[in-house]
Amino acid sequence: MGFRPQFSSALLTDLYELTMLQAYFEERMCDVAVFSLFVRRLPDRRNYLLAGGLDDVLAFLETLRFDQAAIAYLDSLRRFSDRFLHHLEEFRFTGDVYAVPEGTPIFADEPVLEVAAPIGEAQLIETFAMNQIHLQTVLASKAARVVDAAQGRQIVDFGFRRMHGIDAGMKGVRAFHIAGVSATSNVAAGQAYGLRVAGTLAHSYIQAHDDEYEAFRTFARLNPDTVLLVDTYDTLAGIRKVIDLSRELGPDFRVHAVRLDSGDLCDLAFRARRLLDDAGLRAVEIFASGGLNEDEIGRLVAAGAPIDGFGVGADMGVSADAPSLDIVYKLVEYAGRGRMKLSTGKVVLPGRKQIFRVERDGVADHDVVGRRDEAPCGRSLLQHVMKEGVRLPEGQVTLDDARARARTELGRLPPRLRGIQPASPPYRVDISAALAEEADKLRKVLKF
Amino acid sequence: MGFRPQFSSALLTDLYELTMLQAYFEERMCDVAVFSLFVRRLPDRRNYLLAGGLDDVLAFLETLRFDQAAIAYLDSLRRFSDRFLHHLEEFRFTGDVYAVPEGTPIFADEPVLEVAAPIGEAQLIETFAMNQIHLQTVLASKAARVVDAAQGRQIVDFGFRRMHGIDAGMKGVRAFHIAGVSATSNVAAGQAYGLRVAGTLAHSYIQAHDDEYEAFRTFARLNPDTVLLVDTYDTLAGIRKVIDLSRELGPDFRVHAVRLDSGDLCDLAFRARRLLDDAGLRAVEIFASGGLNEDEIGRLVAAGAPIDGFGVGADMGVSADAPSLDIVYKLVEYAGRGRMKLSTGKVVLPGRKQIFRVERDGVADHDVVGRRDEAPCGRSLLQHVMKEGVRLPEGQVTLDDARARARTELGRLPPRLRGIQPASPPYRVDISAALAEEADKLRKVLKF
Repeated sequence: MGFRPQFSSALLTDLYELTMLQAYFEERMCDVAVFSLFVRRLPDRRNYLLAGGLDDVLAFLETLRFDQAAIAYLDSLRRFSDRFLHHLEEFRFTGDVYAVPEGTPIFADEPVLEVAAPIGEAQLIETFAMNQIHLQTVLASKAARVVDAAQGRQIVDFGFRRMHGIDAGMKGVRAFHIAGVSATSNVAAGQAYGLRVAGTLAHSYIQAHDDEYEAFRTFARLNPDTVLLVDTYDTLAGIRKVIDLSRELGPDFRVHAVRLDSGDLCDLAFRARRLLDDAGLRAVEIFASGGLNEDEIGRLVAAGAPIDGFGVGADMGVSADAPSLDIVYKLVEYAGRGRMKLSTGKVVLPGRKQIFRVERDGVADHDVVGRRDEAPCGRSLLQHVMKEGVRLPEGQVTLDDARARARTELGRLPPRLRGIQPASPPYRVDISAALAEEADKLRKVLKF
Repeated sequence: MGFRPQFSSALLTDLYELTMLQAYFEERMCDVAVFSLFVRRLPDRRNYLLAGGLDDVLAFLETLRFDQAAIAYLDSLRRFSDRFLHHLEEFRFTGDVYAVPEGTPIFADEPVLEVAAPIGEAQLIETFAMNQIHLQTVLASKAARVVDAAQGRQIVDFGFRRMHGIDAGMKGVRAFHIAGVSATSNVAAGQAYGLRVAGTLAHSYIQAHDDEYEAFRTFARLNPDTVLLVDTYDTLAGIRKVIDLSRELGPDFRVHAVRLDSGDLCDLAFRARRLLDDAGLRAVEIFASGGLNEDEIGRLVAAGAPIDGFGVGADMGVSADAPSLDIVYKLVEYAGRGRMKLSTGKVVLPGRKQIFRVERDGVADHDVVGRRDEAPCGRSLLQHVMKEGVRLPEGQVTLDDARARARTELGRLPPRLRGIQPASPPYRVDISAALAEEADKLRKVLKF
């Protein structure tokens, strides 16, 4: 078994999607269903979520096919009829998708995505759509906090080694870029997405040389504009060796920065800055890493620590304080009629919906979740991104467009939401009168 | 851009691994380096970690090649010399690997993996080795707790939709299987690994039908041995409809179980059991899901809730209470001499090591981390799994072997470690006298 396991993309789904698909096929149920993908509540430490993952969902829908390996595997489960398996060979996604563009801040109970398609198609894609939107929204939302905490200083993603597998490492870089992260250490993601990669040397390089000074000199000769890691043995002694190197090299000294990776980063940054400045090395920047997150970065920035950039690893890479969201994908309409379930504590708003962002003087005041066909009371966030299985222009957005959107949209949020402290009061999301009325009517019908 | 981004496998690494590799190449440093992969400390809610991910690391090492796309991409970064890029075309991993087999419980500061290879090779693989061992160890360790809490009741993985991307969804199923999980909802993982898949229907299926009873009848006709989801509108009313169906179908009624997915699962399970029993449906099992984790399952089991199996989703799928580990990969020897760094709070034990598990009456008493060449004082855990880039028999283990090992090895842990409560006292891990002496000697040399 190789490290990239062999599977058919169409099988990136839960088994029950396929058992239901077969039932709909046998029952000849093929009317249009509308499913709504939304987050039930925000994690305690999130004032908003930053939508991500749409592009990968649309790419999946465009190419969704059951190959022969998939059909053969399903046949081996002895749960599916030949007739149904034959039908799967012709399966295509032919539906419509409305979605909030990547890089848009969203809130609880707001549909990020609404899919309208023959019920089997709309059902089958649940698992993959949730998986990708969840992952990238989790990571973009976390990264937006880290970027905010750094107050304009660069954030470099160092997370790949402790992120959850290869796909998280790749898609995470996408999400981080949307959220404003400057660069990544992940070379494969740089290759795949054309994003800036960064990185210089590890402790092991220093240790493999008999002498730290010799290691610095050799590495700087090979990589003149490098960042030197100074904490392998003693941080301030390491800084002094960088200064010695500058004296030895004179005009050939072009070291860009030093990196601190352990100890009291605030204190060390002040001391390092003074040592460097006293040696006339004002242009040498200070870069910090080692267990950082938005709280620690916020503290360092508030203390005025002279740090020019931060490398952030696992805490951002797994969104340690909120690694998952209460995200769901629920049937809200079938055959032209609104649907909802009444399970305890898990109520769903019926029908095709729209989010209206109500702004005052260019700043978001509150959102209204309404019916898609009602008169807008604000800026409509859901866009028609796919029609009959084909992407519309609104569904063809570059990663840089999404990043620019995030920057603009985050800039329109009330300032109390953008910081890393809990917003008080939280952002207001209303249900429109028309939608509330529809839900009430439906609830009465269902409470038989 | 497709949803499976295009990249060269050899680039699944951090940029600094490649800048160091180039430096070692230019410096003609090609002596053997030994790197040790270990976890610095256990998360608060883990009494042990269950090792996972080795098979994928070995598969990566066996096939590691820089293809032309990788070379072209690296060339485009303008950081690498033609001579070095040409050298990469010939790159192979030719080293040796010692590792703790998958399914073995391990503790802080214990090397899970030690790689001995020419320094560039050993360095390059750091990122991928960490990524895979981290992910699968995180998830296997979490799942072992969930399995333990269920006290023999089946655990089914429902996590895919909220796990971190495709690879986590696939490799997670591997890790869950090692830890004793019974089945997964992820069809692609079932296909890739040949594991049992499970799943029946969602709320949407019920809602798409005008009548819950009609939905049950239809689905049970198409899938006689199914599990019916009963909480879409009202759980106990749903149970009564299942009972009605049993009366209608008579001997054709073969529904295997009902699934509760919301509300007070303990109370509902007792009520559902009574209703089913009173109707003569003692054979119909009760399956529970909805935001479950080991704590909730432990409470349900302790309360004697008549639940036969649990579906567990996001909490296990992202290891919500400990989504990352303080895992590191550190140089411990180069050119035959022990290496360590002295960074504040981040000391590393030098040299090639072995873990000795000291057992009394078949129960693990404590571990000793020692030099690999010292006389064993217990069972040696690290095995030689790869020699000169080729797997040894010890490195060719099936997933079922790993699962069996986990079962045996967990059974040998002291009972206080196996439960989900913090073990008091925690498991003891000593450093052997010989290793401590080596570290002391080295520390004196480095503190110049």
